[in-house]
Amino acid sequence: MRTTVGIIGAGPAGLLLARLLHNAGIDSVVLESRDRDYVERRQRAGILEQGTVDVLREAGAGERMDREGLRHDGIELRFGKRRHRVDFPALTGGKSVMVYAQTEVCKDLIALQLKDGGPLLFEAEALAVEGAETDRPRVRFRHEGVEDVLECDYVVGCDGFWGVARRAFPAELSRTFERTYPFGWLGILADVAPSHDELVYARHDRGFALLSMRSPSVSRLYLQVPEGTDAEEWSDERIWDELDRRFETADGWTLERGPITQKSVTPMRSYVHEPMRHGRLFLAGDAAHIVPPTGAKGLNLAVGDVVTFARALTHRDETGSDELLDAYSATCLRRVWQAERFSYDMTTMLHRDPEANGFDLRLQLARLERVTASRAAETDLAESYTGFPIG
Amino acid sequence: MRTTVGIIGAGPAGLLLARLLHNAGIDSVVLESRDRDYVERRQRAGILEQGTVDVLREAGAGERMDREGLRHDGIELRFGKRRHRVDFPALTGGKSVMVYAQTEVCKDLIALQLKDGGPLLFEAEALAVEGAETDRPRVRFRHEGVEDVLECDYVVGCDGFWGVARRAFPAELSRTFERTYPFGWLGILADVAPSHDELVYARHDRGFALLSMRSPSVSRLYLQVPEGTDAEEWSDERIWDELDRRFETADGWTLERGPITQKSVTPMRSYVHEPMRHGRLFLAGDAAHIVPPTGAKGLNLAVGDVVTFARALTHRDETGSDELLDAYSATCLRRVWQAERFSYDMTTMLHRDPEANGFDLRLQLARLERVTASRAAETDLAESYTGFPIG
Repeated sequence: MRTTVGIIGAGPAGLLLARLLHNAGIDSVVLESRDRDYVERRQRAGILEQGTVDVLREAGAGERMDREGLRHDGIELRFGKRRHRVDFPALTGGKSVMVYAQTEVCKDLIALQLKDGGPLLFEAEALAVEGAETDRPRVRFRHEGVEDVLECDYVVGCDGFWGVARRAFPAELSRTFERTYPFGWLGILADVAPSHDELVYARHDRGFALLSMRSPSVSRLYLQVPEGTDAEEWSDERIWDELDRRFETADGWTLERGPITQKSVTPMRSYVHEPMRHGRLFLAGDAAHIVPPTGAKGLNLAVGDVVTFARALTHRDETGSDELLDAYSATCLRRVWQAERFSYDMTTMLHRDPEANGFDLRLQLARLERVTASRAAETDLAESYTGFPIG
Repeated sequence: MRTTVGIIGAGPAGLLLARLLHNAGIDSVVLESRDRDYVERRQRAGILEQGTVDVLREAGAGERMDREGLRHDGIELRFGKRRHRVDFPALTGGKSVMVYAQTEVCKDLIALQLKDGGPLLFEAEALAVEGAETDRPRVRFRHEGVEDVLECDYVVGCDGFWGVARRAFPAELSRTFERTYPFGWLGILADVAPSHDELVYARHDRGFALLSMRSPSVSRLYLQVPEGTDAEEWSDERIWDELDRRFETADGWTLERGPITQKSVTPMRSYVHEPMRHGRLFLAGDAAHIVPPTGAKGLNLAVGDVVTFARALTHRDETGSDELLDAYSATCLRRVWQAERFSYDMTTMLHRDPEANGFDLRLQLARLERVTASRAAETDLAESYTGFPIG
């Protein structure tokens, strides 16, 4: 098999890249180790930055998102029983975010790709990337029990944190940056209308909680839990009782309960691999970097990466210059580190760190007070939440 | 001896409080354990916030400050050989700071107090505060070898971190919050014109450095050094060489050298004692809280505390209400914790933490990048640097 761009992974990064390249007249092949059903069901992020929304629309993948997605003009910060709304458009000159689940983005992009895109192979497991330093890099993969080779001009690893693409970087070239957190998120899906029409980020002495939603009838809620918690330890009643405590307000706000349809624990990690390019192999999304979910940045970073790659390759096609491809890693990493910074700051401002001393806790409250008291500090948060520029 | 307000300590907090009370027609006595010469010479802070400048002027203590002080409209951040100026008036609606050493503030206030104020006793060592819960608190002290008692309506402990006032708080009432840092500042005074007309805060892989000044002909410079460093380990040449490295720029800026006239190492600490009031005993300044010097907040916090106390007592004299005196601790602590937050953030953004890993270092650079890239983030810094409102 032969193509211009071999894409490993049919998550939002790989699927969007295939679409952007298709629109630019560049052919690609997408290899995905899982089956279609799995890809369309795995619960992940749900917040699209303004820039991500714009990219999906321009790519022709925004139709259902614009119909079914929920535009959000702010978030609520809750601490000490107080409620403080951060008004995004007022603080950022009109920016907002969209609540539209990653599963839905993937469904839309898969449908487009199968309709008029290049090959998208499910259950095609990439085994290794070879020849990244040459001008004919190859992906060895196994499809329907048979090993095969995809010959490419470029390979883009959109295969996530556990993927094979990153392993093709020589050890002496790779630098990794990491931070783990001594807690995770217990996330639930519940068949009940969201109790608030915007996301609520709650800082409580018992731990962080987040109220989010998937649709007007489905709530997505999270609780900070100790690292290594088993979701099955938490009965439905215990989850709702704990959510009640952490979302408590002075004004009698109440949380509606409903049947819990899914329950899982996500660990929290910050991770960056530098550089994001080696020869003709490029990393995008979780293959290169992980953020804790508090800043809602994971999916949006992946989108920034593949937009940067597609622009760079189009630039080469149009001008013959490798300039933007050569700058790919540095260009992406600037944005990645801003997202890492913001995700770290949101996480530490809102979670209860079991190792925090009294000074740290007072500092945490002082940070929240600052956001509510200074328009500059609040704007900094709103700008970061609605997204850093791509490129 | 008998007075309305017994003030322990003739640093800037105690001296300014005596002046504010004098102006309000309230009598006080100041007890200072050291002699006048010592108080007028000890090197401390040198940056007065806009609000501090205003308070000193209103108190009638601003004449020489306005003549000899250096108004500064910004600071420079230096990292990765880059230079970035933060323009205070442009970002804060006209605020600036004043470079005028604490020693000079003390000299001015001492002169005023001796001319027309209440008693100011040097070499009068406070031994204990007694009866804070009664309406006749007393300060036992020793003056010229003789023990005496100062009977008061109120006692204000402006006697610094090592003073006796805080010890009069019952243990079950006191909560302390603390953070130490594994480094200190080696500070020098040098007889050479400052190499830059505004303060330069430099973040370097070898550690933090700060260029400051006392006057147009005297430079004040600081180097981050390991905790427990002996200033005598550092020869003059070694200091200048190290300063050269840390202030290096891409544009050929050079640091002028001159005779070093003083050399000392300051440890770095964050500390808060809560509450700041017990009965009729009030704590102000370093007696209640310490900040690392990176945010230039120590002196300015002390000024805010004594202004808050003087206002509260005047309010009581005018209305008979204890309302503001009762609110003293909470009022001061709101501002104190904002200053603690800012001082901590400036310290961690600019110093090389020997325990930092690669992730922490990248995050540090991302914070500096953010300040240079976002007007909101830069404004947040400028607002915090020029000062939080008093009260």
